[in-house]
Amino acid sequence: MKVEAIEKLLMDVKENRIDVEEALSTLKQLPYQDLGFAKIDHHRELRQGYPEVIYCSGKTVDQVVHIVEVMMHRGSNVLGTRATEEMFEAVKKQFSMAAYNESARTITIVQKEIQPSNGYIAVVTGGTSDMPVAEEAAVTAEILGNKVERIYDVGVAGIHRLFSKLELITDARVVIAVAGMEGALASVVGGLVDKPVIAVPTSVGYGANFGGLAALLSMLNSCASGTAVVNIDNGFGAGYMASMINKL
Amino acid sequence: MKVEAIEKLLMDVKENRIDVEEALSTLKQLPYQDLGFAKIDHHRELRQGYPEVIYCSGKTVDQVVHIVEVMMHRGSNVLGTRATEEMFEAVKKQFSMAAYNESARTITIVQKEIQPSNGYIAVVTGGTSDMPVAEEAAVTAEILGNKVERIYDVGVAGIHRLFSKLELITDARVVIAVAGMEGALASVVGGLVDKPVIAVPTSVGYGANFGGLAALLSMLNSCASGTAVVNIDNGFGAGYMASMINKL
Amino acid sequence: MKVEAIEKLLMDVKENRIDVEEALSTLKQLPYQDLGFAKIDHHRELRQGYPEVIYCSGKTVDQVVHIVEVMMHRGSNVLGTRATEEMFEAVKKQFSMAAYNESARTITIVQKEIQPSNGYIAVVTGGTSDMPVAEEAAVTAEILGNKVERIYDVGVAGIHRLFSKLELITDARVVIAVAGMEGALASVVGGLVDKPVIAVPTSVGYGANFGGLAALLSMLNSCASGTAVVNIDNGFGAGYMASMINKL
Amino acid sequence: MKVEAIEKLLMDVKENRIDVEEALSTLKQLPYQDLGFAKIDHHRELRQGYPEVIYCSGKTVDQVVHIVEVMMHRGSNVLGTRATEEMFEAVKKQFSMAAYNESARTITIVQKEIQPSNGYIAVVTGGTSDMPVAEEAAVTAEILGNKVERIYDVGVAGIHRLFSKLELITDARVVIAVAGMEGALASVVGGLVDKPVIAVPTSVGYGANFGGLAALLSMLNSCASGTAVVNIDNGFGAGYMASMINKL
Amino acid sequence: MKVEAIEKLLMDVKENRIDVEEALSTLKQLPYQDLGFAKIDHHRELRQGYPEVIYCSGKTVDQVVHIVEVMMHRGSNVLGTRATEEMFEAVKKQFSMAAYNESARTITIVQKEIQPSNGYIAVVTGGTSDMPVAEEAAVTAEILGNKVERIYDVGVAGIHRLFSKLELITDARVVIAVAGMEGALASVVGGLVDKPVIAVPTSVGYGANFGGLAALLSMLNSCASGTAVVNIDNGFGAGYMASMINKL
Amino acid sequence: MKVEAIEKLLMDVKENRIDVEEALSTLKQLPYQDLGFAKIDHHRELRQGYPEVIYCSGKTVDQVVHIVEVMMHRGSNVLGTRATEEMFEAVKKQFSMAAYNESARTITIVQKEIQPSNGYIAVVTGGTSDMPVAEEAAVTAEILGNKVERIYDVGVAGIHRLFSKLELITDARVVIAVAGMEGALASVVGGLVDKPVIAVPTSVGYGANFGGLAALLSMLNSCASGTAVVNIDNGFGAGYMASMINKL
Amino acid sequence: MKVEAIEKLLMDVKENRIDVEEALSTLKQLPYQDLGFAKIDHHRELRQGYPEVIYCSGKTVDQVVHIVEVMMHRGSNVLGTRATEEMFEAVKKQFSMAAYNESARTITIVQKEIQPSNGYIAVVTGGTSDMPVAEEAAVTAEILGNKVERIYDVGVAGIHRLFSKLELITDARVVIAVAGMEGALASVVGGLVDKPVIAVPTSVGYGANFGGLAALLSMLNSCASGTAVVNIDNGFGAGYMASMINKL
Amino acid sequence: MKVEAIEKLLMDVKENRIDVEEALSTLKQLPYQDLGFAKIDHHRELRQGYPEVIYCSGKTVDQVVHIVEVMMHRGSNVLGTRATEEMFEAVKKQFSMAAYNESARTITIVQKEIQPSNGYIAVVTGGTSDMPVAEEAAVTAEILGNKVERIYDVGVAGIHRLFSKLELITDARVVIAVAGMEGALASVVGGLVDKPVIAVPTSVGYGANFGGLAALLSMLNSCASGTAVVNIDNGFGAGYMASMINKL
Repeated sequence: MKVEAIEKLLMDVKENRIDVEEALSTLKQLPYQDLGFAKIDHHRELRQGYPEVIYCSGKTVDQVVHIVEVMMHRGSNVLGTRATEEMFEAVKKQFSMAAYNESARTITIVQKEIQPSNGYIAVVTGGTSDMPVAEEAAVTAEILGNKVERIYDVGVAGIHRLFSKLELITDARVVIAVAGMEGALASVVGGLVDKPVIAVPTSVGYGANFGGLAALLSMLNSCASGTAVVNIDNGFGAGYMASMINKL
Repeated sequence: MKVEAIEKLLMDVKENRIDVEEALSTLKQLPYQDLGFAKIDHHRELRQGYPEVIYCSGKTVDQVVHIVEVMMHRGSNVLGTRATEEMFEAVKKQFSMAAYNESARTITIVQKEIQPSNGYIAVVTGGTSDMPVAEEAAVTAEILGNKVERIYDVGVAGIHRLFSKLELITDARVVIAVAGMEGALASVVGGLVDKPVIAVPTSVGYGANFGGLAALLSMLNSCASGTAVVNIDNGFGAGYMASMINKL
Repeated sequence: MKVEAIEKLLMDVKENRIDVEEALSTLKQLPYQDLGFAKIDHHRELRQGYPEVIYCSGKTVDQVVHIVEVMMHRGSNVLGTRATEEMFEAVKKQFSMAAYNESARTITIVQKEIQPSNGYIAVVTGGTSDMPVAEEAAVTAEILGNKVERIYDVGVAGIHRLFSKLELITDARVVIAVAGMEGALASVVGGLVDKPVIAVPTSVGYGANFGGLAALLSMLNSCASGTAVVNIDNGFGAGYMASMINKL
Repeated sequence: MKVEAIEKLLMDVKENRIDVEEALSTLKQLPYQDLGFAKIDHHRELRQGYPEVIYCSGKTVDQVVHIVEVMMHRGSNVLGTRATEEMFEAVKKQFSMAAYNESARTITIVQKEIQPSNGYIAVVTGGTSDMPVAEEAAVTAEILGNKVERIYDVGVAGIHRLFSKLELITDARVVIAVAGMEGALASVVGGLVDKPVIAVPTSVGYGANFGGLAALLSMLNSCASGTAVVNIDNGFGAGYMASMINKL
Repeated sequence: MKVEAIEKLLMDVKENRIDVEEALSTLKQLPYQDLGFAKIDHHRELRQGYPEVIYCSGKTVDQVVHIVEVMMHRGSNVLGTRATEEMFEAVKKQFSMAAYNESARTITIVQKEIQPSNGYIAVVTGGTSDMPVAEEAAVTAEILGNKVERIYDVGVAGIHRLFSKLELITDARVVIAVAGMEGALASVVGGLVDKPVIAVPTSVGYGANFGGLAALLSMLNSCASGTAVVNIDNGFGAGYMASMINKL
Repeated sequence: MKVEAIEKLLMDVKENRIDVEEALSTLKQLPYQDLGFAKIDHHRELRQGYPEVIYCSGKTVDQVVHIVEVMMHRGSNVLGTRATEEMFEAVKKQFSMAAYNESARTITIVQKEIQPSNGYIAVVTGGTSDMPVAEEAAVTAEILGNKVERIYDVGVAGIHRLFSKLELITDARVVIAVAGMEGALASVVGGLVDKPVIAVPTSVGYGANFGGLAALLSMLNSCASGTAVVNIDNGFGAGYMASMINKL
Repeated sequence: MKVEAIEKLLMDVKENRIDVEEALSTLKQLPYQDLGFAKIDHHRELRQGYPEVIYCSGKTVDQVVHIVEVMMHRGSNVLGTRATEEMFEAVKKQFSMAAYNESARTITIVQKEIQPSNGYIAVVTGGTSDMPVAEEAAVTAEILGNKVERIYDVGVAGIHRLFSKLELITDARVVIAVAGMEGALASVVGGLVDKPVIAVPTSVGYGANFGGLAALLSMLNSCASGTAVVNIDNGFGAGYMASMINKL
Repeated sequence: MKVEAIEKLLMDVKENRIDVEEALSTLKQLPYQDLGFAKIDHHRELRQGYPEVIYCSGKTVDQVVHIVEVMMHRGSNVLGTRATEEMFEAVKKQFSMAAYNESARTITIVQKEIQPSNGYIAVVTGGTSDMPVAEEAAVTAEILGNKVERIYDVGVAGIHRLFSKLELITDARVVIAVAGMEGALASVVGGLVDKPVIAVPTSVGYGANFGGLAALLSMLNSCASGTAVVNIDNGFGAGYMASMINKL
């Protein structure tokens, strides 16, 4: 039930087209989501301009194409994560402006111009193998309207590489620190910069890494203040969170 | 906002005491729970007759007494779980009909007569050490208005004891199977009876029991159909779930 | 040994065709299952009308076909879970009324009419990826003679979708809540409805999901009363348990 | 080596008091931290006005008092976390303006006026037992110069309480969601509000909660975007991170 | 129902004191355990001479004394495990021949002479701290009628001590290998002797020992054939199993 | 150094062909294994008649064939575990009496007659999917010279099947209980029979089974005395241990 | 900024080409790595002669070839770990002196002569399946300029094999003990030799081995002093660490 | 059997006091440890000068005093780890030169002068709470005859403190890195220095630290080469290992 519908209902009451009892009964049976417009729709509107997102993993090519069509029809920008090249090829046939980032495994389609932010988000990785997760974060942040600086392969095993880029990291408004293995990068970055750090553990490693558990626990226990953690390999979540912060 | 308030609002509109815009604005700002009465309050009403429950663990004696007073004032029956004797003594000073079950560590106060159910719930334990959890389940089920049969210490190490009570178990409408160590009781009971079984792992045991994990995993993997599991030592949860089923 | 056989034995004693010693010795050597008829067979009979179930995973196509034949011969309805399409094709060659649910991966053959229940079971999922598990639950509940309402993709990330279906969920006799990732759906549903909730964690997710462990622990620790949990991805178990409850 | 020292060195070179070789050798032996002033000190300065923090756990009363004295001498505001009452009494003897928050177990001393922020941070908890962690977060955020709104005991088991406070939560700039047991609050809040959510799992619960692991995994796997997680019971970390975000 | 009762029933049928129908009905209602005598009682009889066992942990002093009284009345030898000195003192007041092993924490009362076995069981430990578990195993084996050789503190860190006792170990019929920390003793003993080895992991150790998990996993993965494992710290279980084997 | 060599050395000393010093020096440098003959070789001899065993997993077909050749040359019987059909085909080309057990995945070659034991080992499984592990145990026990009774698919979900075979199980000298899922079979069997039970958890199951962990913990925590456990899926280990016990 | 650049800067100051302020400002803006030469470069130089290392896993063939080219151009020796044969073939096309160790899966190219060490490193394994990890360690140690003795398949199940090689192990300067399954080898070796032991758990095994966890925990809890542990299957890390120690 | 005894035996053979057969038989029956002198005793001798070590945890005061007396009688230096003050007081009564390190909880008695090493071991900690473990390492290394430099509280949250001490760390022959929480210190130190690093995870921390597991996994997965790890809180093990390396 739209706001207009409620307005009309009140008008009907006022003008005696329906009586109070009937109006009350109608209001009582409103499904939650309709009554909820005041709050839910309000903040949904704030999200205008946000792209719509598809988590492609576990979906068929047809399903992905179909969802993209619906989203394009609504005029949204589109971000597909964990997408295969095959999915991209199928999408591209329909929407030639679709772009694929091989490393991030993302499909992006921009049909509405994106207002880039003033400040930027720094995406920092420990090693080159963390790049796919970092790219997912970067692509997500970009389509959400943020400038992004990529600072890759600056892990603590060669800490002078990190220091040589420190200014670029320090000047960001938000930092995304992506690291596998022991995940020490997040602590080191968190100790050096005075900005919110979103730490992303990756599943890069082997043995007692246990699929990213080592980096995850390391980041959760970071002795550096100003750090919070997202799920293992969750580049999208980090990019989304960083964007929310950057746009405050 | 109560139903009456909305009714009055509509009346005010009808009788031109306020205009439509103002009414709409009031409606829009209604907090969720007020708009939500249709659904939420409706099923809350179904719960009438249910006791109010306090999880006493981690609360001070004073806090417990205070909450009990409020509940008593509302005319509810009261169930306090994980209560110490000290808490009970303090409550009893104010409400002499309060009762304490030492094993279950429950405080119960019945000020409204409970309609007992027709069918009964069987509470079965593997060993005597599982009794505290079993009693918590039994007391919970009883104050919720269920008849309960206690069948304790019939674990699989002496399986003939279980068989000698099989009829009593089979004739229940719902069975609560409480067991620690390897938790095999739930599978054996589930394989023998044709009723829903609520399995409660307990933390009874040592070593590779890991605080009840062994029994929990065992019960979740039960090869007997018709079994579902609650948290380790969660007698209250099992009693509540069994009551819900028994009263369908 | 059937009841008739024991009856005949007693008759033989009575009519002196055998002496007491011989009869006693025969009784003593009865295998357990024969003596056990009183209890075990009794409740087996209650299960009349229940389909016979094959867990197809890890069996060869030939084995599945063979078991189906035996079951069909006994006049039972048949439910095969975790079945491949190849298995279905082979079964269908023999029994043309066999049906396959691609998402649930179930084979069903109904040769005896099923009496549908009055009340219904609501099967609710958090996301579309939880559908295979939900369908296994739904198909299981249906062949066991229950009406089922499917309410999919109403997870807490878009909680207004859940509220818009709340009435349908609340009016069920039993609710099956299927969710992966963080499994919060079970708690939210459990907090809103006043019916027994069977929670099914799924292995949908990645990273610190650890194959469904996150959802499992979440559901076991649910702060909402009236919830019990089955194994990760165990749609069949949830459907079976819900049916047992619904038919009480 | 201070900037002045380097300046003097260059002057000495310029005026031939020392030769280039000697100057080079001096520069080469500069300890890192002295050379590092450009970057490290720079961002340290940004932190001006930040209180100094003591993690009191595992320290003796004497050690805590001593550290507080040093900090007070530097003119800083002081925040002591995980402090006992005994520690507070000892500190108060020396600094009468010291304040103790019993629930949060924090000692705070404010000797420099704090500029409060414009926007506010909402601290939301699932249950009353999560309050100590929430208070640690709130006290931390306040002494860092943020306005804080406390919205406690609005967990998903009684979700209408959450909805009645939704506006207050939505209008915050950052939300801290504190919950134990299954930690579903973080997902529900994350799904309803369009602000960065810092999720804090607490160790409240028992059994398969495994000291907060259930809530931790639940929050890491949240299907709601815009959420990041800190360590179990780490109220301080959440308050610090939220402050950093709020002050961007 | 005893065998005599069934015999009498058959006699009654034979002599027409009751009719067949009535006899059948009586038989049908026999509880399982009564029908089960043929099998269950039979093997129970084999256990004659076995002591009765009380797991004292979690029982009150009064409960322990009471159970001991019942057992003594039945003429059994008695073994109480995990018993406190206080329990022993109370038992000793009633039964002066009760003995207490401080290290094993066992109470034993021998009122029926024990026939010692021919072969012996070797109980081997890695360190002196494993002694309590080893003693529990040894005392259990002894009261079950086995000769026991104790070979303590021969862990792999000083492997020459183990070799100097090798003959004594090799000549046993069964070996119990008790070890904490990394549990390597079980593998080394298993590799050297040609007898069944019961491995008992202990919780001795710290850190990544995780309460005996390290030794448990180590023993389960032993590359030496002829080894099986009991629960962490389960000296009783090892002694009982070894006795069963020794007495074959 | 063989015994003869030492004998010769002593002779040389006696007959003054070498002096004492030289002899001492030679003895001092004896490698451990040579000096060790007294003990190690002695018990090796006891193992005469034992087959030689190859763990084929992770070896190439050529490696397996080569090892078999060496063993056959030594006159041993041969047992290859975890062998593929391809390996078997290659072995069979050389040794036509080689036999393959498809379910157990074992290659066996018997060139020396096996003296069968008097007593037998009962191998019991919960379900049909546990058969490969059970067969590995059975084949191992057989080639080690034991009679074996296979009693499959008697899990606790249909406990009457187990009871109907109870006599066959009780009359064995050793019982091997093989079960996946919740592993309750081991406890039930352990509670019913008075013989040593070797429990073998299998990785059969899914979800919170965690690759056999549920059954493993269940079996380790069994409340039935007289049970010990081998590694998950370790049919060989169980068969070997059971054989050792049976042959005492 | 190179040392020369700073030297020139100082010269410019001396000769009044730039003033002190300007020089100071230049120094202040030096990126960390440039200022850092004093320390970082210094110890980098010590590493002269060390090969450069590529962790090939997760890289494409092209990437590997490219990195090798760069390294060869710098005149370094090259070690590629976790390399496929395909990678090797591609590298060999360009650099014919490249060598491949099939078991270790390493590519090595030696263009600068290696000075072998005086003492040697003993690489010891429990079984033949641990060989790939052991070879990775050995190849790494060799290209780093160490003599290596390989002592394979001397696990504790046949401990006399270990003793026959004890002298060779004891005479090494460092020992690398590589073992899967229960990892007891490390403790036994650590107890026998008086040299630093680097323990390498391998993922060899199955069931409760949990991918090497059993061996890892076993080694961490070793009761033998003088042992430290690297990650599961981390042959490279062990070889590198042993080389560092051997070259002290 | 001592060397002399064998010598005498050979003499007896030579001089015909016993015949060859008898001598052979005596040699054959030598227990392992006596024959083993050649190897085991040899390397034991190398350990001369090493103190004897008591792990006091779990021992009574009397036991500790007794063991100390025996060691003192043998003329050894003594190191007692995990000792209480009460133990120390009792030891001191007998041996006035006994010293107690409160933080390390060590008792040391030096009766034989210790030759200090030339190079030194650097013991580095992340925080002050890691000090007890670090002190245990330092005291152990010192009594083993090593010079030790303590560099405490230089964790990565304030990384400039670490850099200011870098020279002191780099110039050590071995580095012990002690850290709790996320354990990043080990990786950072390992990346900066070119010396063997022994990493010691501590149990300092809370929540998802899981008693030191986070730091342990972090250190095992370190991306810095030249690092090996000992058990959580195992300061003694680190000190011992470092000493072994330093003395090569």
